[in-house]
Amino acid sequence: MQLISGENLSKQIIEELKVEVAQLKTEGRAPCVAFIRLGENPASVSYVTKKQNIAAQIGIKSQLKLFPEDVSRETLFAQIDAFNNDETIDGILVQAPLPKHISETETFNRVSSEKDVDGFGAVNLGKLCQEDKDGFISCTPAGIIEMIKRESIHTDGKHVVIVGRSLIVGKPSALLFLQKQIPGNATVTVCHSRTHDLAAYTKQADILITALGSPNKITDKMVQPGTIIIDVGINRIPDPGEKSGYRLVGDTDFESVAPIASKITPVPGGVGPMTVAMLMKNTVKAYRLKSKINLDNLC
Amino acid sequence: MQLISGENLSKQIIEELKVEVAQLKTEGRAPCVAFIRLGENPASVSYVTKKQNIAAQIGIKSQLKLFPEDVSRETLFAQIDAFNNDETIDGILVQAPLPKHISETETFNRVSSEKDVDGFGAVNLGKLCQEDKDGFISCTPAGIIEMIKRESIHTDGKHVVIVGRSLIVGKPSALLFLQKQIPGNATVTVCHSRTHDLAAYTKQADILITALGSPNKITDKMVQPGTIIIDVGINRIPDPGEKSGYRLVGDTDFESVAPIASKITPVPGGVGPMTVAMLMKNTVKAYRLKSKINLDNLC
Repeated sequence: MQLISGENLSKQIIEELKVEVAQLKTEGRAPCVAFIRLGENPASVSYVTKKQNIAAQIGIKSQLKLFPEDVSRETLFAQIDAFNNDETIDGILVQAPLPKHISETETFNRVSSEKDVDGFGAVNLGKLCQEDKDGFISCTPAGIIEMIKRESIHTDGKHVVIVGRSLIVGKPSALLFLQKQIPGNATVTVCHSRTHDLAAYTKQADILITALGSPNKITDKMVQPGTIIIDVGINRIPDPGEKSGYRLVGDTDFESVAPIASKITPVPGGVGPMTVAMLMKNTVKAYRLKSKINLDNLC
Repeated sequence: MQLISGENLSKQIIEELKVEVAQLKTEGRAPCVAFIRLGENPASVSYVTKKQNIAAQIGIKSQLKLFPEDVSRETLFAQIDAFNNDETIDGILVQAPLPKHISETETFNRVSSEKDVDGFGAVNLGKLCQEDKDGFISCTPAGIIEMIKRESIHTDGKHVVIVGRSLIVGKPSALLFLQKQIPGNATVTVCHSRTHDLAAYTKQADILITALGSPNKITDKMVQPGTIIIDVGINRIPDPGEKSGYRLVGDTDFESVAPIASKITPVPGGVGPMTVAMLMKNTVKAYRLKSKINLDNLC
């Protein structure tokens, strides 16, 4: 079994972006990403802080606009519009999950498609369907594909089984693996909470992507030896041995599955860091698209 | 084996739309769809004529703008823009395939998303990903789902295997069967030209959707008894017995497969007529969305 270190791969990407952004700065200004966060959900606070720190490391500027959790839709949308119209901002990210009184889809669609670095808006999802390279691919699926590329994993004709059908991971990942390019050209199965006999599908996977949000759900009984596993789950389980009282685990029961997998991502340190790195890559792409700077080096 | 007659189902839809359009006319004007056709490709001529005839039967007005095959991108786009801005036009359809010097994706995206009754534009594909009911679903996948509904075929937890990954059929069909609603909630596998051992997947299908464009490719050896087959293929094969010198067959070898299938669509008379009916349904939907008329009755 070989561990796929998202931590190391994301560091490579960050180093590459540092060089790229330094060059962009000599030609004009630094790229800039704007974050909007609602309320004080600890996971959201932690994600946005992490993203701001990585941006700063790379030399990407960032802004953060905070609102209370009961902010009105009108106030939120006015802020999105202001960022949409601000020429100095390249990317906009509204940190999900949003409070229940605000529609996530409507919010994602409010962000200008040229600044939708999270890739959740309708235009960019549609461009992904169309295999249009000018669109933004949401960061977790983009991170998965980047891992696959950098690990030289063959997808052509392979059976990719995705567990989870979310807009954030499952659906865009399926569309990516189906693309008529490498990585892509895979046969793709999407399973989810309504799937009967999940193991019957996961056992067929050459590459298994788990995005259920269910701790340790995929066991050794559910995978064939030699499978490559990309575990997107980040689940907290109680652990009295930890200072925080919990620890993070994936959707895959790492202990039983890792010995029979050919490659596997750990949790934490797998897909998570890749997601943040791809957000930065999307921000630089947005800057380049706006400035009409050569896009040849972009994925 | 039971035959699913797209011919009969589409007639039902056309009758329903006649009543609906008659009612709309009493409240204002008739819905109107504009067609653009480039060149004289016989299949395109036949499709557009068929669509215009069905529109006329329902009471939907239509316009047809013809261009030579070597029309410039600028002239075509100026016409699309003119239709986009024409308040009396509800739906616009540019008949594919387009000549090679004009990008289909760019053309589809040029049509205003509110008038994109073919559903091939990025915004509507994205809305399909988002499960936004205000979007337009492309007519063939919408026709398949309508068949499934009207035939009371259960999809929840079933394995739907789609052969073909096109933007027109394969991808939107996959997204539809994955939706968190009925019909939907299926486990979905998408196969295509790069799939190894196609039969290993088609044999697993509870519902098999074939959209390969390969005559009689799916044989009885490739399906399990009791499968439901929706055959999207429309292929011409030489037949000296026919006056035209050819006849139409699907992607499924009807003769060998029909006896073991539980339900199957014929070619012709299966998915084809449903596609035309759904275009009309989309046109009425576009009219209602624009007029902000009650959408409760829409699928």
